[in-house]
Amino acid sequence: MRKINILKPILVSNKQRAIENRKKFDSMNSLVINIIASPGAGKTSFIYRVVEHFKRNYRVLIIEGDIRGQVDSECLLKLKVDVIQINTLTECHLDAFMIAQVLPKIKKKYDLVLVENVGNLVCPAEFEIGEDYKLAILSTPEGDDKPLKYPLLFHLSKVVVINKCDLLPYVDFSLKKAKAGFKKENPKIKIFDVSAKTGKGFEKVYRFLERELKVKKKGFRR
Amino acid sequence: MRKINILKPILVSNKQRAIENRKKFDSMNSLVINIIASPGAGKTSFIYRVVEHFKRNYRVLIIEGDIRGQVDSECLLKLKVDVIQINTLTECHLDAFMIAQVLPKIKKKYDLVLVENVGNLVCPAEFEIGEDYKLAILSTPEGDDKPLKYPLLFHLSKVVVINKCDLLPYVDFSLKKAKAGFKKENPKIKIFDVSAKTGKGFEKVYRFLERELKVKKKGFRR
Repeated sequence: MRKINILKPILVSNKQRAIENRKKFDSMNSLVINIIASPGAGKTSFIYRVVEHFKRNYRVLIIEGDIRGQVDSECLLKLKVDVIQINTLTECHLDAFMIAQVLPKIKKKYDLVLVENVGNLVCPAEFEIGEDYKLAILSTPEGDDKPLKYPLLFHLSKVVVINKCDLLPYVDFSLKKAKAGFKKENPKIKIFDVSAKTGKGFEKVYRFLERELKVKKKGFRR
Repeated sequence: MRKINILKPILVSNKQRAIENRKKFDSMNSLVINIIASPGAGKTSFIYRVVEHFKRNYRVLIIEGDIRGQVDSECLLKLKVDVIQINTLTECHLDAFMIAQVLPKIKKKYDLVLVENVGNLVCPAEFEIGEDYKLAILSTPEGDDKPLKYPLLFHLSKVVVINKCDLLPYVDFSLKKAKAGFKKENPKIKIFDVSAKTGKGFEKVYRFLERELKVKKKGFRR
């Protein structure tokens, strides 16, 4: 109870700041996706494939959130697109103020801004950053019970990517059960089964994002 | 910066409460282990095996922390030991006050209290609950770079269990690299490689915990 009293005003002021960030991104017609998953679910590998596909025809920016270090940024820089690193130090999530702090560094108009949040299924879902929408990733070794245990994230996400489907023969994970869990939390959620390792399933992701980018370019707000 | 100013006094008052909890557990010679890992790393399966092994000769209590629901408690109740469920609702971690709230429910003297924290590598490391020590679990599909990315947890843990070693042939995970990372953060850390699915590697875990339980029973404080 003690902490909830503190959390509420923080979330309200965060929401205000997120709206400001969103206006700025909208003014550039940037599609901003807040990517949220557990540690090691494959956020960076997912981003790598998406950027590799879109960088020829779209201007892409990656904002990389980590507690400490820049292991993922170093990997993503190989793609030769712009990457901004945010180190949260003690914080388990990105918030709208952290994004606001890096906004002045954004000098170009980007079509696609992919934000890799800190590896965590809880707080990143609570803190809006000014995104068009959240994209959650769940990897098969984590288990098909996660929609039950972390309902807020899946309730708020427009898209969920089930990653590491190449491991399905070796882990106890029912795609059917997981999908039913996602749909229960959010009947409209869009689900993709992929393997960021092998690339399987990404064609559908690309087609979906291509449509989203075109809509955004026309200045259509979500 | 805004949030760190709030976090500090919270952590100080939490620490005070954790010391009180610890006194209570010590008065009963209970060995209390705070088990921390990502969602789906195998905390419940690890606890299942440990309890199954020790319940014949020791009195065991499980304290189960989840945002919502009681999927894991229901699984652990099959072991026919006492389980106390804590639902944190919005919180991404257990804290000393939540443990204090359930202390009055603890009517018996338990030799071993296993606390399954909320699935998260960040905040659970910051909030002491009155434990003897933290035991971290990292599963192989999460990747061997986690000690670099979540240094605090591995710095503070006495033990780290590398779980899902049965998946080693199918994932990019170097045991050598992971172990070097753990040792860099914490040269004294005790490392076990296991598979909670097959049971491989657990004999060493049991021997270690058996020694710990004997020491604690003699009333030796860590």
